[in-house]
Amino acid sequence: MEKVTVKSLYRDKEKFIDQEVEISGWIKKIRVQKNFGFIEINDGSFFKGIQIVFDTKLNNFDEISRLSIISSIRVNGKLVRSQGAGQDIEIIANGVEIYQKADLDYPLQNKRHTFEYLRTKAHLRPRTNTFSAVFRVRSVIAYAIHKFFQENGFVYVHTPIITGSDAEGAGEMFRVTTLDLNDLPKGEDGKVDSSKDFFGKETNLTVSGQLSGETYCAAFRNIYTFGPTFRAEYSNTARHASEFWMIEPEIAFADLEANMELAEAMVKYIIKYVLEQCPEEMEFFNQFIEKGLFDKLNNVLNSDFGRLTYTEAIEILEKSGKKFDYPVKWGIDLQSEHERYLAEEYFKKPVFLTDYPKDIKAFYMKLNEDGKTVRAMDLLAPGIGEIIGGSQREDNLEILEGRINELGMNTEDYGFYLDLRKYGSFPHSGYGLGFERMIMYVTGMTNIRDVIPFPRTPNNAEF
Amino acid sequence: MEKVTVKSLYRDKEKFIDQEVEISGWIKKIRVQKNFGFIEINDGSFFKGIQIVFDTKLNNFDEISRLSIISSIRVNGKLVRSQGAGQDIEIIANGVEIYQKADLDYPLQNKRHTFEYLRTKAHLRPRTNTFSAVFRVRSVIAYAIHKFFQENGFVYVHTPIITGSDAEGAGEMFRVTTLDLNDLPKGEDGKVDSSKDFFGKETNLTVSGQLSGETYCAAFRNIYTFGPTFRAEYSNTARHASEFWMIEPEIAFADLEANMELAEAMVKYIIKYVLEQCPEEMEFFNQFIEKGLFDKLNNVLNSDFGRLTYTEAIEILEKSGKKFDYPVKWGIDLQSEHERYLAEEYFKKPVFLTDYPKDIKAFYMKLNEDGKTVRAMDLLAPGIGEIIGGSQREDNLEILEGRINELGMNTEDYGFYLDLRKYGSFPHSGYGLGFERMIMYVTGMTNIRDVIPFPRTPNNAEF
Repeated sequence: MEKVTVKSLYRDKEKFIDQEVEISGWIKKIRVQKNFGFIEINDGSFFKGIQIVFDTKLNNFDEISRLSIISSIRVNGKLVRSQGAGQDIEIIANGVEIYQKADLDYPLQNKRHTFEYLRTKAHLRPRTNTFSAVFRVRSVIAYAIHKFFQENGFVYVHTPIITGSDAEGAGEMFRVTTLDLNDLPKGEDGKVDSSKDFFGKETNLTVSGQLSGETYCAAFRNIYTFGPTFRAEYSNTARHASEFWMIEPEIAFADLEANMELAEAMVKYIIKYVLEQCPEEMEFFNQFIEKGLFDKLNNVLNSDFGRLTYTEAIEILEKSGKKFDYPVKWGIDLQSEHERYLAEEYFKKPVFLTDYPKDIKAFYMKLNEDGKTVRAMDLLAPGIGEIIGGSQREDNLEILEGRINELGMNTEDYGFYLDLRKYGSFPHSGYGLGFERMIMYVTGMTNIRDVIPFPRTPNNAEF
Repeated sequence: MEKVTVKSLYRDKEKFIDQEVEISGWIKKIRVQKNFGFIEINDGSFFKGIQIVFDTKLNNFDEISRLSIISSIRVNGKLVRSQGAGQDIEIIANGVEIYQKADLDYPLQNKRHTFEYLRTKAHLRPRTNTFSAVFRVRSVIAYAIHKFFQENGFVYVHTPIITGSDAEGAGEMFRVTTLDLNDLPKGEDGKVDSSKDFFGKETNLTVSGQLSGETYCAAFRNIYTFGPTFRAEYSNTARHASEFWMIEPEIAFADLEANMELAEAMVKYIIKYVLEQCPEEMEFFNQFIEKGLFDKLNNVLNSDFGRLTYTEAIEILEKSGKKFDYPVKWGIDLQSEHERYLAEEYFKKPVFLTDYPKDIKAFYMKLNEDGKTVRAMDLLAPGIGEIIGGSQREDNLEILEGRINELGMNTEDYGFYLDLRKYGSFPHSGYGLGFERMIMYVTGMTNIRDVIPFPRTPNNAEF
């Protein structure tokens, strides 16, 4: 008798049919008649469960009959082709051993619960269909990303989480400290003396690994980061979390076009991989979470992503005849309504927008010869808007220093970053992908709280 | 003419020989004679560089001749079998284009630098041989770990970094806050009012993902975490960092023996994978960093790991006739000298120690029937001592609550954890692997600061 998983019973059906097998798992459904009963058992290895048929031949038939859902059991029996509707294989039990009879107050009884309610049971929700599908897909997407980059010769870099520089400058940061807040050391000026803190100075949680990532790009040519990043913003929206994961590849001797090719290849690779690896989960999303999900994803797979400049995009928007909430004018930061019009209505496929006005983009982006735009790119996708943002980096020392000064920033804070432009400067490019945004796109889930195991948002750090 | 990487020139040598190729990279060495010169160029794709031969046929011969190391160039030319000693292929340049002539004050000139000095140049050190090898191997080990677990059906779980519970209780934690330390909100008792903080309460950086990981084990059967963890300890040793990465698998319906089998298979998989993927780097470590590294690793690969109980280990130590700094007695926490004696001198291979006294282990470990030991396991390896620690988890609600009370902890803090024992409790086991410790073991590097790109230690959060 072989200990097996439900997944292997489905995937290697012919191997196990008419064999004695043993599985352990949790009761998903139980239905008992006078002399026999049915249990749907899920063992966590697979999206679907398997049906167990048991009858009074078992000496603990009565005890089994009284089990409630989520009780844990071990079953041995023969795998057979099912006579009933709804499943093609089932196990005729020779024995059912009970690990634990679950308490009857299990909060996730088999009825429909709202996602809001399930967030309050974040430790139990992965046992439901939706979240079982979401979090398995999350894992598979993470692996697809590693696989894609590693197979293409990229080096994975763990950039620091605790950062001593606020040079990244992207939004509000969380402070990290070991000082006793009720007994703070003060300097002569009456201010908190951060030199007494654990790291001898003020430290924060990272908002991006890009700048450190670039230093490794200068050593390994092609690198990527994949780690948690943090924003201390009081944004209580469906798309913002205070803690989320980012992927930031950086490629050497590569211009913006190479950057776009990489991003396009990566997005397609991820989608293709998930569709192949998680057919059951994706079918579930397509049916219950986002009607038309397969069409959306196949359209991405089968399109050559568009490319146009910001300036061209502005012209298209101006000529569109659409009434936007935010008026269109060269120089504005595009809003979601603009991005979605371009991707969904005009191009009907993912498009890269390039060459944005320098004033709405970060200091490190390479200045174009026109002196007013930079080699930025955003990838806009139908159904979500911006999904990737990146750029070619400024590799000219003087221009970069000029930009830093122009923006009132302090060149001393960027010493290590400027060094890369002194010692073997090289054309390079990179982008950032919000991991959760990609999961939402692939699954059709619409709230970021529902794609993070234990989400952190303002006033919420439960579990 | 094909744009290629140095790696592809070595790995697909026969394909490129006598072909025109183009590579971009950084000058590692340059040596010029009257009418010709040699450049060793490294493009980051490979541990080794490749030799470029250039001569006065190039109209910028003089300019090239004056280039200093780390200058970035693009070369096109023909790949040929080398006549010279020291390399088997080289490129005869038809053209050399200069991206940037590096400043002459490059801090890492070609001479031996101490690891201590190189830590002060953490943004440049990956360009040196040692650190190029270390950080490529770091990336490959990370991928080996993902590959191992994913191919065995494990789900990767991102447990939270910011935690609202201090339930993990393993050492000192870093506080995370957005409060203005110079203007703290105070409650009526004069103490800081944490309800005004970003998350509405006090939050810290995680020290372990295990407890949240277990909740996903109850849904997916086999899971693993792989993320950063933090310890605010003032330990200035070669083996402690304040920020490091941990891998914590958790397996359902699995006892301690299954846990040990998993750990053994994982360790062997990692070593095998790195030896296969990074032969040049591993050769370098074996030659320059740890003499005998290959013997050590091959011994691990070819051994069946030993298994003995803590009690048996104490007997062996007592009978050893060795004089230890810390006297041996049943009940003590084993010190590094004891662990290394067992692994290096007595067993001469990795050994699992099991069934430790409950008083020196965590509350969640499964109590044995003797009432005084728990189903813990530590993996001790020759050359490093403890490398993995784990246990079967207590799955009996009453015993677990009893342990929590006995230790003066608060059951309310463990509500979600206790729920797992109420709703389908199941035998399960898991362990933690310190990622950096594994890297040190595989590379022979002896200071944790030299296997983390930008290490964080007391009074140090540079870059």
